[in-house]
Amino acid sequence: MTDDTRSVIERHWSTANDRDWDAFAALLEPDLLYEVPQTRERIRGADGYLDFFRTWPGDWRVRILRLVCEPGAAACLIDFTDGGGTMTGMSFFRLSARTRIAQVTDYWPEPYEPPPRASRFVERI
Amino acid sequence: MTDDTRSVIERHWSTANDRDWDAFAALLEPDLLYEVPQTRERIRGADGYLDFFRTWPGDWRVRILRLVCEPGAAACLIDFTDGGGTMTGMSFFRLSARTRIAQVTDYWPEPYEPPPRASRFVERI
Repeated sequence: MTDDTRSVIERHWSTANDRDWDAFAALLEPDLLYEVPQTRERIRGADGYLDFFRTWPGDWRVRILRLVCEPGAAACLIDFTDGGGTMTGMSFFRLSARTRIAQVTDYWPEPYEPPPRASRFVERI
Repeated sequence: MTDDTRSVIERHWSTANDRDWDAFAALLEPDLLYEVPQTRERIRGADGYLDFFRTWPGDWRVRILRLVCEPGAAACLIDFTDGGGTMTGMSFFRLSARTRIAQVTDYWPEPYEPPPRASRFVERI
């Protein structure tokens, strides 16, 4: 079932990249909950989640950098690239018993200048 | 081995919360690599990683919110709380064949105001 989870998450991004919305929608539970804690945004339902992707402007593309899966849950690190550049995103997924996506929680960390560090072992690269 | 991975990551945070640095150090590979892509910071070696934790100021405490594990890899969502408040952090871990922590990559996403969304399904909470 871990392999099933991995396959569903990989297909989530590959069908999105291909704009294959029928195949994308087939991976989702109807009552999917999508949340972005940083912005306090939420979408309730697979129809809205699909619309959010379909209407996202520009010629964007996602590349999976890391994908950790266990039965019913996954965490994925992605690069999201469009005309404006590349952002790093992270998504936690929960899957239903029939291995459809039931919950997605996104994070979009941005570059920042680090504060002074107490440890002398921290290098800047 | 997924259970081993989970146990190591849980102990990573519990020994850090307890300031039990001997037990914390026992979970680490000597050549551990720690990276913070947002700040372009890096620590090479378990000694430096331990020092980074030991010298972190204040009365801080970590709480695991989500932990996804597979053999040799994990992704963890945490709350980090100190006198200044609570931050959300995310760490991707890689473990060695003997199930010690070999690589840690941290992300610290911050709240932001969302841009206008093309989809009408996005709610604010």
